[in-house]
Amino acid sequence: MTKNEFIMDCPLPFNDYDRVLLAHGGGGTLTQQLIERIFLPAFGNNPLLKRHDASVVDFPSGSLAMTTDSYVVKPLFFPGGDIGKLAVTGTVNDLAMAGAKPLYLSAGFILEEGLPLESLWKIAQSMRQTADQAGVSIITGDTKVVDKGKGDGVFINTAGVGVVKAGMDLSPASVKAGDAVLLSGDVGRHGIAIMAAREDLEFETKLESDCALLHEPILTLLSQGIEVHCLRDLTRGGLASALNEISQVAGHPILISEDQIPVREEVNAACEILGLDPFYVANEGRFVVILPEKEVEKALLILKKFEVSGAARKIGQVLADPGKSVRLNSLTGATRIIDLLSGEQLPRIC
Amino acid sequence: MTKNEFIMDCPLPFNDYDRVLLAHGGGGTLTQQLIERIFLPAFGNNPLLKRHDASVVDFPSGSLAMTTDSYVVKPLFFPGGDIGKLAVTGTVNDLAMAGAKPLYLSAGFILEEGLPLESLWKIAQSMRQTADQAGVSIITGDTKVVDKGKGDGVFINTAGVGVVKAGMDLSPASVKAGDAVLLSGDVGRHGIAIMAAREDLEFETKLESDCALLHEPILTLLSQGIEVHCLRDLTRGGLASALNEISQVAGHPILISEDQIPVREEVNAACEILGLDPFYVANEGRFVVILPEKEVEKALLILKKFEVSGAARKIGQVLADPGKSVRLNSLTGATRIIDLLSGEQLPRIC
Repeated sequence: MTKNEFIMDCPLPFNDYDRVLLAHGGGGTLTQQLIERIFLPAFGNNPLLKRHDASVVDFPSGSLAMTTDSYVVKPLFFPGGDIGKLAVTGTVNDLAMAGAKPLYLSAGFILEEGLPLESLWKIAQSMRQTADQAGVSIITGDTKVVDKGKGDGVFINTAGVGVVKAGMDLSPASVKAGDAVLLSGDVGRHGIAIMAAREDLEFETKLESDCALLHEPILTLLSQGIEVHCLRDLTRGGLASALNEISQVAGHPILISEDQIPVREEVNAACEILGLDPFYVANEGRFVVILPEKEVEKALLILKKFEVSGAARKIGQVLADPGKSVRLNSLTGATRIIDLLSGEQLPRIC
Repeated sequence: MTKNEFIMDCPLPFNDYDRVLLAHGGGGTLTQQLIERIFLPAFGNNPLLKRHDASVVDFPSGSLAMTTDSYVVKPLFFPGGDIGKLAVTGTVNDLAMAGAKPLYLSAGFILEEGLPLESLWKIAQSMRQTADQAGVSIITGDTKVVDKGKGDGVFINTAGVGVVKAGMDLSPASVKAGDAVLLSGDVGRHGIAIMAAREDLEFETKLESDCALLHEPILTLLSQGIEVHCLRDLTRGGLASALNEISQVAGHPILISEDQIPVREEVNAACEILGLDPFYVANEGRFVVILPEKEVEKALLILKKFEVSGAARKIGQVLADPGKSVRLNSLTGATRIIDLLSGEQLPRIC
């Protein structure tokens, strides 16, 4: 029995010399081994097992939602998640934000030569576990390998499709003057957890990423008939950037109250040390809901039933005058403009 | 007027200092500028202009085909194409190989800090042009930036969805003993063109990649009622790897004749110098059709009407005995086994 056959039967433990080679991306037997020994056992489902160039699946009647994200997070494994969990969570959440029931994902891997196969195995397992939780299948995929020094371990792209009920139009353009802004929980944890892992910062309590699937509270809100105008998850650029993007398209300013926005003590402390503003720090399990004031009470009752949005609350409203800005009623009583930053305070957090 | 406003109105020429910064990937104003000044002008369409996390589009009744590929080709621009053309062509072709009418694409960019923005602009334009030719829209996208030395210019992932008529089952598992194997044209040009560009090899005549869209001949074959069992484009690993993969799933050996397989003189010459076998070299505009012998004549008549498959011919057949191999009747009269290689002879050709 060769070494590789052993891996097939029992993928763990890998040895230190089981690493990605350029030839793993070449479309030959080594690519096949990678598929058969890592990806099929992890993702295995009927369309994928057909091993064709594209997978064909049933699609229910309704409109199709499609989204894509590439993930380049560093480090690959962090408190509260890893790049695999993130790659499935992020794309499922983006579908949910369009009001879609997530159905199918694709996965594209760009591997750096020398990556330990054990890392890839763990990442693939984590993707499968998260996909199962989200009720989606990874039905098609691709692997490329780049020379050492031309990548950084693993980059993953996931694209996702889902089905949307006819007539659903959740988007920043649907936001109206007077709408309320709900926030699903505390902000800033994902970015700070990544930063802490990268820089070996220590906190008194263990700070974990908030990385989590959001489709359940969202789809429940919609199926219960709550009139929702816009949903947005607070990833790159955080709460401040998401609200700015919405205000720009909606054409009305958004006013939020600092005292309503929960930020954990460790996050605030880390932000002070690092010179960051938690409202701009990325989250991977937080979202805002923009909806008519009359729906607020019912919506909060629903959101609070789910762990991931158990701390949901109203944080502000869409103003009536025309404009494109986000204004913050700060703890000191002053009102200030929360503008878009030119870039990310923390690069490569997703 | 600031420099950046100028770019918005007139994207070309860019100056040498217009380069990708880490902050272009941060979700702030620089990310917005990249979207507004490069991607929206290039890809602009209604779903994309809504700027939401996911795009929602109509989907016709039928099954859904989905595929994904990441593109890491080096160099980014090569004779006969560039990474943008390749990224659209490859994914459209993969959908066509499943018998699907390609409809929508996603595009995920992983940019290396320092990439000239002019290169990105050219690549985006090339994607749009190819998408228009294919009749598909790029409806959703994502950009990440990695630090200099952690990527290699641009990596692109495209995922694609298309619609498949109910009941269509094109796959290696549908291949039957006695089926004929048709090849759409000469093989080996893409890989050799890339290699020549990378290594500055000179040929007497200009050798260009065969990179081309294949959906038209394929969809015409199918709409004309030709009974097709399997389609496969001959990308990574070339003709030899594609036929091996099909044979492995079908459970029958495939026999092909060397004298029926066209290889251009320059490709043969380059392969001799470089020690490569043209049957394993990647193509980006070639495919095989596996179908019942009785359909061969009608199918060739259709294929020959299209420039991209004008040189189509029968190159072999699926044997009746059980087995998983590809056998070649060589020019010398001997029969030899064409096995899967462990990796790619030429890394990063797509």
